[in-house]
Amino acid sequence: MRFADTDPLNRTRYPIDEWALVETEFNDDEQGRTETLFSVGNGYLGLRGNVEEGRDGHEHGTFINGFHETWPIRHAEEAFGFARVGQTIVNAPDAKIIRLYVDDEPLVITEAELTRYERRLDFRLGALTRSIEWRTPSGKRVLITSRRMTSFTDRHLALLDYEVEMLDADAAITISSQILNRQDGRDEYRAAPAAEPGAFDPRKAETISERVLQPRVKRHEGSRYLLGYQTTNSGMSLAVAAEHSILTANAYTETGTIGDDLAKHIYKVTARRGVPIRITKAVSYHTARKVPARELGDRCDRTLDRAAEIGVNQVFAQQRAWLDAYWARTDVVLDEQPVLQQAIRWNLFQLAQATARTDGGGTAAKGVTGSGYGGHYFWDSEIYVLPFLTYTSPIVARNLLRFRQKMLDLARARAVEMNQHGALFPWRTINGLESSAYYAAGTAQYHIDADISYGLCQYLNATGDEDFLVRGAIDILVETARLWEDLGFWRTGTVDDVFHIHGVTGPDEYTTVVNDNLYTNVMARANLEAAAEAVDRMKADHPAEYRMMVERLNLTPAEVAAWRRAAAHMHIPYEERLGVHPQDSAFLEKELWDLEHTPDNRRPLLLYYHPLVIYRFQVLKQADVVLALFLQGHRFTRAQKLADFEYYDPLTTGDSTLSAVVQSIIAAEVGYHELALRYFRSALFVDLADLHGNTADGVHVASTGGVWAALVNGFGGFRDQEGVFSFDPRLPEDWERLTFRLTIHGTRVRVSIDQESIAFQIEEGDSVQLSVRGTPIEIAGAEEVRVELLADHRARILGAPTMGDVAGSRRSDGSLLTASIPTLSLLDTGEVPIGAE
Amino acid sequence: MRFADTDPLNRTRYPIDEWALVETEFNDDEQGRTETLFSVGNGYLGLRGNVEEGRDGHEHGTFINGFHETWPIRHAEEAFGFARVGQTIVNAPDAKIIRLYVDDEPLVITEAELTRYERRLDFRLGALTRSIEWRTPSGKRVLITSRRMTSFTDRHLALLDYEVEMLDADAAITISSQILNRQDGRDEYRAAPAAEPGAFDPRKAETISERVLQPRVKRHEGSRYLLGYQTTNSGMSLAVAAEHSILTANAYTETGTIGDDLAKHIYKVTARRGVPIRITKAVSYHTARKVPARELGDRCDRTLDRAAEIGVNQVFAQQRAWLDAYWARTDVVLDEQPVLQQAIRWNLFQLAQATARTDGGGTAAKGVTGSGYGGHYFWDSEIYVLPFLTYTSPIVARNLLRFRQKMLDLARARAVEMNQHGALFPWRTINGLESSAYYAAGTAQYHIDADISYGLCQYLNATGDEDFLVRGAIDILVETARLWEDLGFWRTGTVDDVFHIHGVTGPDEYTTVVNDNLYTNVMARANLEAAAEAVDRMKADHPAEYRMMVERLNLTPAEVAAWRRAAAHMHIPYEERLGVHPQDSAFLEKELWDLEHTPDNRRPLLLYYHPLVIYRFQVLKQADVVLALFLQGHRFTRAQKLADFEYYDPLTTGDSTLSAVVQSIIAAEVGYHELALRYFRSALFVDLADLHGNTADGVHVASTGGVWAALVNGFGGFRDQEGVFSFDPRLPEDWERLTFRLTIHGTRVRVSIDQESIAFQIEEGDSVQLSVRGTPIEIAGAEEVRVELLADHRARILGAPTMGDVAGSRRSDGSLLTASIPTLSLLDTGEVPIGAE
Repeated sequence: MRFADTDPLNRTRYPIDEWALVETEFNDDEQGRTETLFSVGNGYLGLRGNVEEGRDGHEHGTFINGFHETWPIRHAEEAFGFARVGQTIVNAPDAKIIRLYVDDEPLVITEAELTRYERRLDFRLGALTRSIEWRTPSGKRVLITSRRMTSFTDRHLALLDYEVEMLDADAAITISSQILNRQDGRDEYRAAPAAEPGAFDPRKAETISERVLQPRVKRHEGSRYLLGYQTTNSGMSLAVAAEHSILTANAYTETGTIGDDLAKHIYKVTARRGVPIRITKAVSYHTARKVPARELGDRCDRTLDRAAEIGVNQVFAQQRAWLDAYWARTDVVLDEQPVLQQAIRWNLFQLAQATARTDGGGTAAKGVTGSGYGGHYFWDSEIYVLPFLTYTSPIVARNLLRFRQKMLDLARARAVEMNQHGALFPWRTINGLESSAYYAAGTAQYHIDADISYGLCQYLNATGDEDFLVRGAIDILVETARLWEDLGFWRTGTVDDVFHIHGVTGPDEYTTVVNDNLYTNVMARANLEAAAEAVDRMKADHPAEYRMMVERLNLTPAEVAAWRRAAAHMHIPYEERLGVHPQDSAFLEKELWDLEHTPDNRRPLLLYYHPLVIYRFQVLKQADVVLALFLQGHRFTRAQKLADFEYYDPLTTGDSTLSAVVQSIIAAEVGYHELALRYFRSALFVDLADLHGNTADGVHVASTGGVWAALVNGFGGFRDQEGVFSFDPRLPEDWERLTFRLTIHGTRVRVSIDQESIAFQIEEGDSVQLSVRGTPIEIAGAEEVRVELLADHRARILGAPTMGDVAGSRRSDGSLLTASIPTLSLLDTGEVPIGAE
Repeated sequence: MRFADTDPLNRTRYPIDEWALVETEFNDDEQGRTETLFSVGNGYLGLRGNVEEGRDGHEHGTFINGFHETWPIRHAEEAFGFARVGQTIVNAPDAKIIRLYVDDEPLVITEAELTRYERRLDFRLGALTRSIEWRTPSGKRVLITSRRMTSFTDRHLALLDYEVEMLDADAAITISSQILNRQDGRDEYRAAPAAEPGAFDPRKAETISERVLQPRVKRHEGSRYLLGYQTTNSGMSLAVAAEHSILTANAYTETGTIGDDLAKHIYKVTARRGVPIRITKAVSYHTARKVPARELGDRCDRTLDRAAEIGVNQVFAQQRAWLDAYWARTDVVLDEQPVLQQAIRWNLFQLAQATARTDGGGTAAKGVTGSGYGGHYFWDSEIYVLPFLTYTSPIVARNLLRFRQKMLDLARARAVEMNQHGALFPWRTINGLESSAYYAAGTAQYHIDADISYGLCQYLNATGDEDFLVRGAIDILVETARLWEDLGFWRTGTVDDVFHIHGVTGPDEYTTVVNDNLYTNVMARANLEAAAEAVDRMKADHPAEYRMMVERLNLTPAEVAAWRRAAAHMHIPYEERLGVHPQDSAFLEKELWDLEHTPDNRRPLLLYYHPLVIYRFQVLKQADVVLALFLQGHRFTRAQKLADFEYYDPLTTGDSTLSAVVQSIIAAEVGYHELALRYFRSALFVDLADLHGNTADGVHVASTGGVWAALVNGFGGFRDQEGVFSFDPRLPEDWERLTFRLTIHGTRVRVSIDQESIAFQIEEGDSVQLSVRGTPIEIAGAEEVRVELLADHRARILGAPTMGDVAGSRRSDGSLLTASIPTLSLLDTGEVPIGAE
C-alpha cells in the first residue's frame, strides 16, 4: 500500500482549484495519466483527454459503454465450464481529432514550442478546455483555444470547438477535422502486452488483432460526415457522425473526403493577424446490438440536427444546469481544505462521468475513460458505486439494478453449467456471459450474487421503492438465495448441524478457492435472510404480484424455510485463541508473509510472485473480513471489529484499489483515526497521483465511489443497517466541517458535521427518520436540526424535537481521540457477538 | 471406473495369440484404436499402425521422442510465473506410405473389397505384418503382404516391405512409395478440438496451426530420397531418408520426384499372374537440437548404407535376437491363462516400444504411439515406468534418470521463479521448461520432486549403482530436499512443532492446491531422509566426490540437519474419529460426491463438471493416499492400510488410468482379492479394450508399467522398502502359476508363485538376498529354492538353506481367502503406526 502524502500533486503543474482540475504545463511523460484524468464522459460516451491534434497519445480513446467485441477464449489447458466468450470494449472511431497546420507546419504538441499552456477540466461546466500559445518554427505566435464536452442531457452528443488566432502575423492555416477508425492500426494504438517474462499486466485489456469494425456505411453531405460499422464477432453496430461549422472574418475554403476508416473536413483559411477562426464540431455516436448501422446513422443525424437547432451555447448551458443539479444532490464539502476539496470533487465528478447516462448499461471498472479490465462490469458496481447512487441519484441506481435483472436468464444458465440451482452472476462481463478466464479469482467469487442482492436491498431500504421489488427485482433475491442454499451443504455429526459453503473465493484475491470464506458466508446469510423476508413481505403486501412470482419461479414455502434454516445455521468461523474471525477455515493456519521485508520493487505482489506462492501465505490483496465488518457491521461486536481490523490490516497489501476505502471506513470506526485519514488519502489520490501506476488504463471508478463512502460512512459514520439510518461521526481532528447530502425515501437532507455537533437540514422533500449515536430523531420542515456529540459517544439533540432519550454530559475539552490509541467509537448494539461465545 | 469383462475383446476379430496381437477384419470405426494398438516403435521412433496405403487414417502418426515444436502459451488471463513455453511433439514426415494401383485403380482399404485380411503385431519378431487379398473393381484378385518394423538395435532405422502378387490375371501395377510431410495439411490430420461447449478434451494435444517444419534440404539420388527440416520456433532439425529396392521377375520401370513436402519413388510394373513384386523400403530418421538438417542427412545416409550392407533378413534377425533377450529379462508368465497372457505381453511389449531406445530422452505419456498429452513427460516415468526398468533393464533406467539429471539447471531456475530454494522439476515438459498451463493440476504438483527422488533411490537400492550417485545424481537428492525444506514451514505454538507443506496438489487431480496433502508429505519426508542419508553415506564412502559435491552445491551440514528435522516433524494428517489419513488437511470436511447416482454419460467427471464443482467434493480422479500406502508401505500399519483403502476406494472414479494399477496392488495387499483382480483387468485392457475411450490418442504407457507392478508388487507381493527385497504373494484363486524375473544387483532371479509356494531360481549372476513373509533367505547357485506359503502368512523354506526361523503349520485346505471378507495378508512389521497414537 502506497500512502499518499498530504498533498501528493505538483502544484506548479496542477494548481489547486476547488472546482476544476487544471494543468499548466504539457508533459509528454505523463500523457497516459493525464489522458485519463482529463477524460470527459457521460456514462455512455467517453473521450479520453488526448490532445486535440490526435498525435502521440498514450492511448487514443473513445469508449462507448457496453460496445464490445467478442472473441473465443482459448485456454492453454481447457476444462469444462471455463469461460468461453471473451469480451472487450472496442476503442471506437476517434472523432476528437482537429489537426492544425500553420503555413503547412503541423502543430504537434509533443514537439511544439508552447509559450502558454493551460488545460482545465471544469466540474461545474462539464467541459475540458485548453488554451495554448504556439510559437511556430518560423516564429509566428498562434493562440489556440479549444473546448470539449460530452453531454449529460443528450448522451449521444459530444461538442468540440477549436479557435485559432494569429497573434502577430498573417498565415495560411489549414484545419483538418477528422473521424479516424484506428482500431486496427497499431501505430497509434498501444501494442499488446509482450509475451516476455514480467512484461505482462493482467489488469490491462486483451488486445484483439483482427479487424473488429467492419465498414457498413459511409456518408458525406456538405460538412456532415457519417461512418457506420458492425463488429466482426459480436455483431454490434455503431454509427458516428460529425457536423462542422466555421465562424471567421477570414477568407476560407472547405473541402472533404471520406473513406472506410477516415473522414476529413478541411478548412483552408487565409488568416489575418488578430482575426480569429472558430470551428465547431458536433459529434454523435449511436450504438446498438440489433439495429443496422445505416439506421443508427439516421439517429446520429437527428441528434446533430437537434443540437444545431439548440445551438452550441444552449448545449453548454444545459450541461451547466445538469451539473448544478448533480452537485446539489452529491456535493461533499470540506471547509478550509482546498487540497482535499479539489480531489473530492474530481472523484465525485468521475462518478457522474461513469454512471450518469449508462441508462440500460452497467458501470465498467474504468467507466468510459479507458480500456483497462476490458470494459468489464464487476461487483464494483454494487458494492462501491451503487451506494453513492442510491443515496444521491436513485434513478441511476435503479437503472443499474435493472441491468442486473435483465442479466438473470444468463445467470440462470450459468448456474446450470456450474451444476447449481438458482442463478450465478458472471464475475466479469459485458454481455452477461462469464468472461473471467481465471476462475480462481473469477467464477469462484460466488459472492457476486450476495453483492448484487446487498445492493438491491440497500436500494430498496433507502428509497422505499417497493414497486421495483414486486415488479421483478424479487427474482434476483429468490434466484441468488437458491444458489446459496444449493451451493452450501450441511455437515452433521459435530455438536450442531452447521451450514458450510466450500470452494469459493472471497473478495481478497490473494487467497483463492477456500472453504467458509467469512465474507461470503456473512453476505450469503444476509442474502438468504433478505430473500425470505422479501418473499414474506410481498405475500402480505402484494398478494397478486406474489402469486405471479410464485408461479413464475416455481417457488415453494419449503424453499423459503430452507433459506432461513441455512442462514440460521450458517458457519461463521471464529478463532478463539486469537479472538479473530479467520478469513476462511484454513487462513490462520498459513504462514505469514513478511510484508515488512518485501521490497517496493516486488509490489504489487501479483506482478512478481506466482499465485501459488502468494496463496500459501497470510497476505491480502484487499480487505475481505474487514469489508464484511463494514457491510454487515450490525452482526459484529465492536470488540470483534477492533480485533479483526488489528489482525488483518497489517497483512493487507492494498494491491487492489478496492481496499483503501474499506480500511479507511473501519479504521475510523474502530478508532484508528490517523490511519483512516491515510487510507482515505490513498483512495482520494489513487488516480490523481497515480499511486498504483496504472491510471493510464483509466479511472479506478470503484475507488471514486469508495471516496464518497469513506467520507459519508467513514468520517460521517453513516450506516443503514437493520433499516435504521444512523450516524456516529468521527471527524478528523483538523477538519473543521464536513457537509454532505443524502436522499432517503425521496427526501434530500444535508448533513453537516463539525467537531462538536452534527446538523441536519431538509433540502428537498418532507421528512426523514434518523438516529445519531443510538438516539432516534426525526428531521422535518425547514429548520436545521443540530445534535450535540457528547464525549461518551452519545448524542444530545439541540434545537429540534427530541424523539429519543438524551443523556450524558457535554464533552469537556472538545478534543478528539488521538490516532495512536485506538478507541472505540461504535455503540454496542447489544447484539450477540458472532461466534464469540 | 469401467471394469473390464473377463475377456473384453471380440475374439472373432482379435483371436487369442500369446505372442501377438492379431486382427482378422478391417474395421473403419476402430481405426483410431487399432492405429495405436498396432504401432511399432523403439522408444525413439514410433510409427502408428496406419494402413500402408496412407489414406483415411484417424491420425497418421510418425513420432520421434522429444522432437517438438514450441509455441508461446497465451493465457486468457496471465499471471506471474505461469508456464510460457508450450511444447508439442511434432508429427514427423510420414515415410510409411506405399500406395498401390492395379490397372490404375487405387487400393483404398476403407473401400476395397477384401477377401482376406490379417494383421499381426508379433511380440517376438518385433514387427507388424499384414496380409490381404483384394478383389479389384474389375474382379482381379491381388495378394498383398507387407511388413513394418522399427529397429531396437539401430534406433534410427525402420524397415518396410510390400509384396504384391496378381493371383489370377495380369495387370499394370503402380507402386508409389512416399515420404509425405503432412504436418501443415489439415486434410489428413485430425482437426483441433472445437471451441463449442463440451467438445474439448484436455487430454488431447494442442494443435499448432502455423507451418512447423521449414524445408532445409531435399535430395534425390537413384532410389534414395532425403528431406530435411527445421522446426520454426524450437529450431530442432530432422532428416528423413528412404532407400528403395525391388525384387521381381516382372518388367518394370522406376522414376521419382521430390518436393519440399513430398518425395515419391514410383515403380511401374507389368505384372504377370503369379509373379510377385517385392519392394523393400529402408527408412532412417535423425533429429537433433543443434545440428543442421544437412548434416543429419549424412547420418541418414550412413544408417541406410549400413542397413543395406547388413541386409533385410539380418536386420530382422537382430530384432528377434534383441527381443529374445528382452523377454528373458522381462517376461511374466501366467500358466493356463491365454487371454491374460496375451494382454500381459502386449503391455510388456509396449514398455519396450516406449523405452528401449529413448537413450538420452524421457518417456512420454504415450510413448511414441500418439500425440496425446503433446508428447510430454510426466511423473509417470518415475512412478509407473521406471520401477519396471530398474528391475528388468537397469541400463535403460539409468538413462531415464540421467535425463532428469540433465534437467536440473532448468529445475533450479524454475524454483527461483517459484520463489523457492533448490530445484523444482516441471510437471509436464519436453525440453525441461514447465509446460503445464493449468497450474492447479500442474505446477502445484510439487510431488514430482519427491517422485523423481523416489525413482532414483529405488534404482540405487536395486542396482547398487553407487557410481551413478556420486558422479552427479546426488545433486537431484540435494536440490529436491532443499525445495521441500524451503517450501514447507514450521508451525509452532501447538503441542509440538510441526512441519507443514501448504498449497500443493497431490496425485489426485480432483482436489487441488491443498494443505498437507498426505501423499506429498509422506513422499517429501522420504525425499528429505534419503537426501540426508545419501550425503552422509557419500561423506563416509566417497570423501573426494563428497568434497566436490559440497563445493559444487554449497552444501552445509546445517542444511542436512534441517532436512532431518523437517522429515522427523513432518505433519502426517490422521483423523482419529474415522481412523483414516485425510488426503489433505481439509479433505474430510468436504461434501461426499454421490458417485453411485452419477450417470455413466457424465463420466469422466472432468469432461462434464467445472473444476470448482469437482474440487468441492470428496471424490478422487485417482489413487492418492492409496498410492502412498504402496510407495511408502513400511510407514503404515496394516490396519491403517485397510482403513484407508476402504475409505478412499469407493470415492475413486478411476478417471485417470494411473489409478487402477495402484488400487489393484493395495486391494491385493489388504485382502480384497477379487477387487484386486478387477482393477488389474481394467489396467490390462485399458487400451486393448479402449476402456477410457481415448486409446486413439496413444498407448497409456504408465498403465503398461502399472500392469507389471500389479503382477509383481500386487499378486507377487514384492516390495523393496527399507533396503529389503521381500515377498508376500497373494495369487488369485484361479491362477495356477505366476512367473516373473527381477534383476537385483546384477543378478537375475526367476520368481515362480503357485498356490502353495514361491520358488526362486538364479538365471544370471551369483546370488541375491530376499525375504519371504518376514523370513530372510539367500538365493545362490543353480538350484531352485522353494518356499512354502503357510496359512498364517508365514513362510517355510524347502529345498534350500534356511536363513531365518521357520514356524507354523501348513495351511490345511489350500484355499485362498475370499474377496467378500477382506483379510489382512500383510505382515505387521512392528512399525509404530503413523499418527495413530
